[in-house]
Amino acid sequence: MAVGYHALPVLLPVAGVRWGTTAAGIKKPGRQDLAVMEIATGSAVAGVFTRNAFCAAPVQVCKQHLQTDQTRYLVINTGNANAGTGARGMQDALTTCRAFAALVGCAPEQVLPFSTGVIGEYLPMDKITAGLVHALSNSASDWNPAAHAIMTTDTLPKGVSLQRNIEGRTITLTGIVKGAGMIRPDMATLLSFIATDASLNAGDLQMLLQEVVRDSFNCITVDGDTSTNDSLILVATGKAHKTRLAVGSAGFLAFKAALLELCQTLAQLVIRDGEGATKFITVTVTGGADKDECGAVAFTIAHSPLVKTAFFASDPNWGRILAAVGRAGVSALDLSKVRILLDDVCIVAGGERHPEYTEARGQAVMDREEITVTVDLQRGVASHTVWTCDFSHDYVRINAEYRT
Amino acid sequence: MAVGYHALPVLLPVAGVRWGTTAAGIKKPGRQDLAVMEIATGSAVAGVFTRNAFCAAPVQVCKQHLQTDQTRYLVINTGNANAGTGARGMQDALTTCRAFAALVGCAPEQVLPFSTGVIGEYLPMDKITAGLVHALSNSASDWNPAAHAIMTTDTLPKGVSLQRNIEGRTITLTGIVKGAGMIRPDMATLLSFIATDASLNAGDLQMLLQEVVRDSFNCITVDGDTSTNDSLILVATGKAHKTRLAVGSAGFLAFKAALLELCQTLAQLVIRDGEGATKFITVTVTGGADKDECGAVAFTIAHSPLVKTAFFASDPNWGRILAAVGRAGVSALDLSKVRILLDDVCIVAGGERHPEYTEARGQAVMDREEITVTVDLQRGVASHTVWTCDFSHDYVRINAEYRT
Repeated sequence: MAVGYHALPVLLPVAGVRWGTTAAGIKKPGRQDLAVMEIATGSAVAGVFTRNAFCAAPVQVCKQHLQTDQTRYLVINTGNANAGTGARGMQDALTTCRAFAALVGCAPEQVLPFSTGVIGEYLPMDKITAGLVHALSNSASDWNPAAHAIMTTDTLPKGVSLQRNIEGRTITLTGIVKGAGMIRPDMATLLSFIATDASLNAGDLQMLLQEVVRDSFNCITVDGDTSTNDSLILVATGKAHKTRLAVGSAGFLAFKAALLELCQTLAQLVIRDGEGATKFITVTVTGGADKDECGAVAFTIAHSPLVKTAFFASDPNWGRILAAVGRAGVSALDLSKVRILLDDVCIVAGGERHPEYTEARGQAVMDREEITVTVDLQRGVASHTVWTCDFSHDYVRINAEYRT
Repeated sequence: MAVGYHALPVLLPVAGVRWGTTAAGIKKPGRQDLAVMEIATGSAVAGVFTRNAFCAAPVQVCKQHLQTDQTRYLVINTGNANAGTGARGMQDALTTCRAFAALVGCAPEQVLPFSTGVIGEYLPMDKITAGLVHALSNSASDWNPAAHAIMTTDTLPKGVSLQRNIEGRTITLTGIVKGAGMIRPDMATLLSFIATDASLNAGDLQMLLQEVVRDSFNCITVDGDTSTNDSLILVATGKAHKTRLAVGSAGFLAFKAALLELCQTLAQLVIRDGEGATKFITVTVTGGADKDECGAVAFTIAHSPLVKTAFFASDPNWGRILAAVGRAGVSALDLSKVRILLDDVCIVAGGERHPEYTEARGQAVMDREEITVTVDLQRGVASHTVWTCDFSHDYVRINAEYRT
């Protein structure tokens, strides 16, 4: 049902990374719900996390453990977010790391835990510790089982691979992502795991990830709800190059461009598979005084239930877009300069309907499955783009029935 | 279908105010869509308006004309918002005032125009000028026809009257209101008209209205969308008292309390009749460092589609409330102090589920038609209350089908 995305493409293995999965019975019996990523020694690992003040126990543990710079394993469960679980939740996240460390013979701080699912329930620790053994036993270089195992309300497993020739070697990037609701990442989407065989040091990797996330995962919104568990991990195993990519070198910039493309594709997959989505909407605000005001206008449009239901109905009710621009809080906005376009059709110019606009032209755009809204404020050179989906009957159905 | 509101109550006439209405055929033939309020000379008139930058032509004209302090007539049409209509829209609003002024023999500046309905279409001026004659011809002291004539997607006409004994005289306050979607007034709801026979000077009335609106109309949200046309007018005819209520006197304070009660009732009626509403939700945030942060938390909860769909489903999925508190942007929030209650049932204490909370106790509250969410931040003495409704299948249906 995802918009413009119909199946998981071939995911390329990344040298130095292996995945194991199992059905631990955390919420539903028989469903793959526990995944383990093994990372070769000497890899660099970077991460970004939710800014929700109620961040989940595993997020807090991840942040601490990442500081050791010795990460070797990721342990991911679905079916339970271990959020809103207080001191016991913290103990459960630490116990998961300790149990896994004992199995593989590493330090607990070398294990990062991730959880996603219902908030406010305690982890079934017996099922998780039992599941870890099984997950480890089927470890392989294939990412496909992991893409399935991290799903919750997602309708399809989501992932993508890229290859680029950088400094004379073929570099592979592969990433998977899950998440369809409670999506307005301030840092990253619910859960995403990306690996590459490029070689970078941990500090450079972390800086690069934060930059790239700003123009990819932080530009998507399904419903404006920032989750308690958003986590994105980027692993660079260095298996393709002996020497590290130097910051600012042509190779480094080529890698950055590839990483941005991968992250934008993954972030957009979350929107394409957004809860109840029938349309993929790009909102681009140009001509702003600064990037912040462009973002404010873009997110106001992208969060408006009235705009989103109009897209669902394929109704060129552009007054709702105009009203959203007007309430976005841009100071001293000169309405007579504002232009609004649906794809290439100009609907508003000079604060009113464009003289050549007709309902038929608007309708032709609205009937499309993928639509770009462009708002040109004509007061500067800044711009910002946000990706979102429409608001359908199914959004309400999915979220009203989530726990029943 | 409104929650806890089933019919327009008896609306008491206000000496010095008369209403005329007609079916001018603006959008649908035969529907009452044009109303005229006549205000006795010597009345004081106050107004508050939308802060949407794309404010409609009639709002701009209203603000100018109010400055004359000589307002005698309000002209209100539904079916067309005269917003996003540029220079021609301004001309149409002014022409409406001029045409009506010519009919009754006053200055155009003594007429205030109001429009509500679809954005981006020009007013049918011939129908409006023809309708004005008819509306004027059936003018009477009854508010009931006006409560009907200002409706758009409202399922019921909405209004209320209060009487209080102030300084030895019976004072009457009557108000009507319309609006069900595009409701997150920063100033007032879509359209509301209130009159009293109390005597106040225009400056005091304006100050009083602004104060009262802050704790009534500015505390409601259906969908977070501030309209282009929100307008609230308060008329004080002075027919009950010869002398004016002095600021700070016992009579003035009693009047203020009555006006606040009237405005809160009217504002809550908009929520009770919110598009697709099946629940009436009060969100109270207490223990905040200041009123702003309490408001930020309350509105974040009230705007969350996940929280709203959980209320629709009567699902005590309190993790969604907790996540909304966490992303409201309150700095240095101590999660271990936060308490969350559904009516009198404590669900969260110390950042996790209250030990005595059970799903059954949460379900018992969620099954109610009117529910209060209380969030106690326990870091100060400020508080703020917001009223909202749930997000139902009908919300999507109504807004997807609005123009079809």
